[in-house]
Amino acid sequence: MAVLVLKFGGTSVANPERIQQAAKKVKAEIDLGHKVVVVVSAMSGVTNQLVDYVRSITPSYDPSEYDVVVASGEQVTSGLMALALQQLDVKARSYQGWQLPFYSTDKHEKARIDEIDANVLNDCFAQGITPVVPGFQGVTRPTKEDRGRITTLGRGGSDTSAVALAAALKADRCDIYTDVNGIYTSDPRLVQKARKINRIAYEEMLELASLGSKVLQTRSVELAMNYKVPVQVLSTFDPALGSDLPGTFLVDEDIMMEKQMVTGLAHSRDEARITLTNVADKPGMLARIFGPLADANINVDMIVQAASDDGKTVDVTFTIPRSDIVKTTEALTANKADLGYNELQTSTDVVKISVVGVGMRSHAGVGQMMFKALAEKGINIQVVSTSEIKISVLIDESYTELALRTLHTVYGLDAA
Amino acid sequence: MAVLVLKFGGTSVANPERIQQAAKKVKAEIDLGHKVVVVVSAMSGVTNQLVDYVRSITPSYDPSEYDVVVASGEQVTSGLMALALQQLDVKARSYQGWQLPFYSTDKHEKARIDEIDANVLNDCFAQGITPVVPGFQGVTRPTKEDRGRITTLGRGGSDTSAVALAAALKADRCDIYTDVNGIYTSDPRLVQKARKINRIAYEEMLELASLGSKVLQTRSVELAMNYKVPVQVLSTFDPALGSDLPGTFLVDEDIMMEKQMVTGLAHSRDEARITLTNVADKPGMLARIFGPLADANINVDMIVQAASDDGKTVDVTFTIPRSDIVKTTEALTANKADLGYNELQTSTDVVKISVVGVGMRSHAGVGQMMFKALAEKGINIQVVSTSEIKISVLIDESYTELALRTLHTVYGLDAA
Repeated sequence: MAVLVLKFGGTSVANPERIQQAAKKVKAEIDLGHKVVVVVSAMSGVTNQLVDYVRSITPSYDPSEYDVVVASGEQVTSGLMALALQQLDVKARSYQGWQLPFYSTDKHEKARIDEIDANVLNDCFAQGITPVVPGFQGVTRPTKEDRGRITTLGRGGSDTSAVALAAALKADRCDIYTDVNGIYTSDPRLVQKARKINRIAYEEMLELASLGSKVLQTRSVELAMNYKVPVQVLSTFDPALGSDLPGTFLVDEDIMMEKQMVTGLAHSRDEARITLTNVADKPGMLARIFGPLADANINVDMIVQAASDDGKTVDVTFTIPRSDIVKTTEALTANKADLGYNELQTSTDVVKISVVGVGMRSHAGVGQMMFKALAEKGINIQVVSTSEIKISVLIDESYTELALRTLHTVYGLDAA
Repeated sequence: MAVLVLKFGGTSVANPERIQQAAKKVKAEIDLGHKVVVVVSAMSGVTNQLVDYVRSITPSYDPSEYDVVVASGEQVTSGLMALALQQLDVKARSYQGWQLPFYSTDKHEKARIDEIDANVLNDCFAQGITPVVPGFQGVTRPTKEDRGRITTLGRGGSDTSAVALAAALKADRCDIYTDVNGIYTSDPRLVQKARKINRIAYEEMLELASLGSKVLQTRSVELAMNYKVPVQVLSTFDPALGSDLPGTFLVDEDIMMEKQMVTGLAHSRDEARITLTNVADKPGMLARIFGPLADANINVDMIVQAASDDGKTVDVTFTIPRSDIVKTTEALTANKADLGYNELQTSTDVVKISVVGVGMRSHAGVGQMMFKALAEKGINIQVVSTSEIKISVLIDESYTELALRTLHTVYGLDAA
């Protein structure tokens, strides 16, 4: 008899029929004797609709009222899920964030979890009640003036809600039901030989999530890693139940039996490349380039500096999120006199390809295999960046599929 | 400087643009120096959509989870209204039912107001903040197990929320913004000469609301009458501001300067007529007929008993809501042996026409004028029922417009 947190994403609760299907999975786990907390996202599309309402009233909105509006989507599905469970003779009831309470900081729109009171949930278990909790929602601590304000945890925050509840309950498993049946060695739409990964280390998942894999919110992976929450990613449309363990497990690196050199590949098209030519090669120049970008809240990722044609100055190349390209060029142009560069070149025809694996810590030559394989296919590497367990390269976007398939084979990831 | 409660119905907040228009009216009142509480309904159509979701999951739903789902519509508009006001440089914030708190009984789906804490709202006024409150929502008192549950006050309950808040604040006026510019002497779509009424007594409005006028929820009128809340019904699409007093005022009968015999006409097509023929004319028979209907929660309205053709038995005719016709015939058929009637006749080709006016108390002959006028047009009266300030007749539905226009003229209601 285990304690389980089952989280259903937006496509899993997209309409009343899907909610009823999801409720059957919950019921099956309860019939196996497990104690279950259900966490639900909003119906797919609803949060976008609510955000559109807010933005059409004012682009510079008060985030505390934004939270009041957008948190309502999860309130709806939590009530509907409780009803669907009751219809299957499961004693269920919903608890909104303010009812648990699920305390967060007051940084509206991107609140961080402060403290979760698990007493109500444990009382539910004692009474045979299955609690249903809306994901994404929190509440600030009550003050003299009012009883706390509704907060939200950022887009995709329901994953984080589920993992946090699992940590607070010391749950045996946190199943994240989504529309794919696990984490893959690469995107199966681009790489036909991609395989589902059975076990992945938290740190690998963290790299993949931040490098472009959209299956889990990055913060939920961090939280799972910090509290050692056993998370399973699995498909809501697969007839297999969570307890059949059909999905991908996030586990501690230490308990991974065999450490492959590379566990998976990620790619991100959300990149733009900026090059400043003929920058004076003197101390402090990089700080002067990136200071204004940091002030503008632009996240600079890969950076490379190379000698210019004239041999006296340098060219500085870096990547930024594609959506920040206007803000970036504005900030750099405004500081052109101070920076003294010759030309500002931008390109969006780029893709970032990453290989991730905790095995890199103990295997040398992972990067060399990558550079050689790509060179043999005539793919030019524009920028490289590395961490302890990943290597990323920026290449021409038109080579995306070729690069992924080549690397997938080279690192022995192809399905048998 | 007055305290005002401004309530905007579903068509007044149907989309972000309408919410911005409504916010301008609020801002204009504030610019006049008034202290304002805003109450909002859900966007028109949203509550029906949410109710459909609930019903498609289970027709026999748990009303406490129903309330969680349907109360979300007002949460959305309360946040959006606060944002629209902020956009106009009004310091505004939303307070959900549980944040005020707005305590109600725990009779979910049809909760009654228990107690409203006006302290938060008065504190807002002191700080120059305009509070926005979702209508329709309440919350039960917190218990040891949880922090209270969300309730709703029944369809149309936002009117009741607004009047209750006005009563709690001892507001100078409660403006109900809707899609018509007041209460009319009759339905303007049927009676071209219908006039807007400037002042109507609470009791008259109560009769009109329960007799088929859908402008205000009956409970809101009761509450206004009990707490002497000055309510104005006005159009959100009329450029006139509430403080210009363009609408219809609900007032105490005592302060109505001249009491007309008849203030207005109502009609309801939501009626069905049932006749049981040849019922034995003995004591207790009516109780035996209506007992099973009361048990089935069917609201019997007009009742008449007349001698049958055979001179020994009676025919009993009565009206019920049209939607209850199946339940009613089932209940009567099941008890046929006990009741011993000959035939059960049903008709839905009927309409109830009512004339309402507090002046009836001091004028004799109001009914006689009605009966004579209808007879002259060849309209047969099937059933009559009266109260101190209204007379209702059931007639053939095809005469609806003719009867309304005739009575409108006879009682001197026609526009000049």
